[in-house]
Amino acid sequence: MRTRPLKVALLGCGVVGSEVARIMTTHADDLTARIGAPVELAGVAVRRPDRVREGIDPSLVTTDATALVKRGDIDVVVEVIGGIEPARTLITTAFEHGASVVSANKALLAQDGAALHAAAEEHGRDLYYEAAVAGAIPLIRPLRESLAGDKINRVMGIVNGTTNFILDKMDSTGAGYQEALDEATALGYAEADPTADVEGFDAAAKAAILAGIAFHTRVRFDDVYREGMTEVTAADFASAKEMGCTIKLLAICERAEDGGSVTARVHPAMIPLSHPLASVRGAYNAVFVESDAAGQLMFYGPGAGGSPTASAVLGDLVAVCRNRLSGATGPGESAYAALPVSPMGDVVTRYHISLDVADKPGVLAQVATVFAEHGVSIDTVRQQGKDGEASLVVVTHRASDAALTGTVEALRKLDTVRGVASIMRVEGE
Amino acid sequence: MRTRPLKVALLGCGVVGSEVARIMTTHADDLTARIGAPVELAGVAVRRPDRVREGIDPSLVTTDATALVKRGDIDVVVEVIGGIEPARTLITTAFEHGASVVSANKALLAQDGAALHAAAEEHGRDLYYEAAVAGAIPLIRPLRESLAGDKINRVMGIVNGTTNFILDKMDSTGAGYQEALDEATALGYAEADPTADVEGFDAAAKAAILAGIAFHTRVRFDDVYREGMTEVTAADFASAKEMGCTIKLLAICERAEDGGSVTARVHPAMIPLSHPLASVRGAYNAVFVESDAAGQLMFYGPGAGGSPTASAVLGDLVAVCRNRLSGATGPGESAYAALPVSPMGDVVTRYHISLDVADKPGVLAQVATVFAEHGVSIDTVRQQGKDGEASLVVVTHRASDAALTGTVEALRKLDTVRGVASIMRVEGE
Repeated sequence: MRTRPLKVALLGCGVVGSEVARIMTTHADDLTARIGAPVELAGVAVRRPDRVREGIDPSLVTTDATALVKRGDIDVVVEVIGGIEPARTLITTAFEHGASVVSANKALLAQDGAALHAAAEEHGRDLYYEAAVAGAIPLIRPLRESLAGDKINRVMGIVNGTTNFILDKMDSTGAGYQEALDEATALGYAEADPTADVEGFDAAAKAAILAGIAFHTRVRFDDVYREGMTEVTAADFASAKEMGCTIKLLAICERAEDGGSVTARVHPAMIPLSHPLASVRGAYNAVFVESDAAGQLMFYGPGAGGSPTASAVLGDLVAVCRNRLSGATGPGESAYAALPVSPMGDVVTRYHISLDVADKPGVLAQVATVFAEHGVSIDTVRQQGKDGEASLVVVTHRASDAALTGTVEALRKLDTVRGVASIMRVEGE
Repeated sequence: MRTRPLKVALLGCGVVGSEVARIMTTHADDLTARIGAPVELAGVAVRRPDRVREGIDPSLVTTDATALVKRGDIDVVVEVIGGIEPARTLITTAFEHGASVVSANKALLAQDGAALHAAAEEHGRDLYYEAAVAGAIPLIRPLRESLAGDKINRVMGIVNGTTNFILDKMDSTGAGYQEALDEATALGYAEADPTADVEGFDAAAKAAILAGIAFHTRVRFDDVYREGMTEVTAADFASAKEMGCTIKLLAICERAEDGGSVTARVHPAMIPLSHPLASVRGAYNAVFVESDAAGQLMFYGPGAGGSPTASAVLGDLVAVCRNRLSGATGPGESAYAALPVSPMGDVVTRYHISLDVADKPGVLAQVATVFAEHGVSIDTVRQQGKDGEASLVVVTHRASDAALTGTVEALRKLDTVRGVASIMRVEGE
């Protein structure tokens, strides 16, 4: 065993970074045995140097992250700052100065993954980022290594714990969105500004990363259709229950049936209670993977939090250190398939549509005609009426999002349709 | 990209082997892109050469497996024969002649994993075996790579699809063991001789492999406590339901609370319906992993079958081929922790015990005294009696298996205890 330690620079020392540093210290002997050489925390770049950081030698702390990654003796840079800059420049600089990189930065990977992978490859270094998607759940490695001999057709998951907590609360208590959000905030599951979570930005970044790996195709954040869950109502949950469903914010990456293109999207959707994703509670994450040979797989666990994310970071750290010792690199970007990413209009799925209509004869016939004209086949219709007002709940067979959009536009123009109360996709069947 | 192909020898061409060969042909371009070089099926060793094997060039087929692995130009040997010999000798010979090995052979790995790993290391080659445990479910790689920076405390799973199918059928229909087994046999889920499955041999081999990887300790098949599920009755399921539980055949690998030893065991157990493993249906497998930092993770998917197992084999094949090209090897055996494997008596868990007792005053006091004398604390007791006969159902707090065994022996000696109807462990709380 080599006795000269591998040197690790830690960029960021918040909830995740401090946990990474703690485990590196407390589990030093295990890490040494598993890597084949000791690892040493060689520097910690922070914004606020005066904060007391228990267990971290103050002489390692610096505010000059750039100087740290440029030192030249760093074997691995662990980036847990988040955000685009300065993380991007620091990672690129790290590669230029001979370090491999472990990152938990989903936003950056979703936006600039290709360029970062290219920089890693140019310098013969590793870029690992298991922690960027679904926290502690091993997902990147299974997708890009375990399933490397298979053909993945769909990745569908709950990849944001905050929104799952809110939706689960709405489902189990009948609470409205705002009430459930307030509870999530009070319990620390939602941030003061919950936009990134509830509007689906966080999940969309993860969807881009997952789609890219699953389909060997570059998929960027901007390629992902994104719809948040702020407009999901208690009434939607009631409708879902009538269908034997619940509502989840799903990230869905799919290969088109002809295999010639892929799509990636994030939106709330109804899924049957019998689907494994339906029973994912609280802030947990789970990802369902369908492939040609393996069939249906699911990966489940805590999707966020300091310790779980640190577990993922340290797993990558061990792998990257082992690669440094053997002089090899792990799998880099695999984008050889280069499939086109289709727009949302091409997505084919089922829909649950609630219409407020006039309660008079012929309305159903009118509505049904509009669906037929747009080539959207109806599975079930439920009509409820009183006092001249009625609601019509339509569940469709599989149709393209474009056809559904056209249908809804035409429905809105009907005199007898007072309003479209909700449109929700139905997944998982 | 290298154009000279990597040469693969396939040992065994049954359900799994033929699927491996088929995917190697149909997905050749994808495999080439993912590996960085083409892979070529260079030979297929079979027992019955006359059988028609669709899609396999007959000139590749041989009955001389030894000559095939000795050819010297083979880069990777894929062993899907199963059993101890000739698989063991063939794998060792393969390493001696410069090949890396991908195996799906749980029995062999559980019995001789250490020697095979040593042979691989001596010759600087890889030994991968994702397919040996839980079919297509990525489990070996997540445990030994993704969680390499974490401390795993427990691995608990349903790792045998046949027994899960039978138990699920008993649970959902109220059928007895034999009836459910007959259905499993008729549907092809159970073999003509189901011993390896129903007596827990298959699961015990997988438990040994999982415990070894999870705890960085050598755990052999003989170290695993094993109890089959042939004596689980419809009455046991009724008792389980009263407790809000179901019954699963579980493989459980645990680190002792003081961290100084480990245990591995396979037996039927009650688990609460709220536990993620309780809802694993039919022939599916699922493995629940608990670690210090990651918390609770679950991996779910098809645990057997030609295509799922082939998916796992091919994932390993891609990894091993990539390693061949880069001149590196993947993680080998990690047994540095070398923790003692404790006997079943040291296992601490909860118990559900049904006693047939005389229906007269003082019986409960007698029984309770026996539990107390053996240091086994009672959680709940339920008494039901009529016509001078009564049953007493005792659920204990956590106690050692040795203490429970002593308790049961003493109970059997009581005049008022007519018989011990069932003893079942309660897990997952």
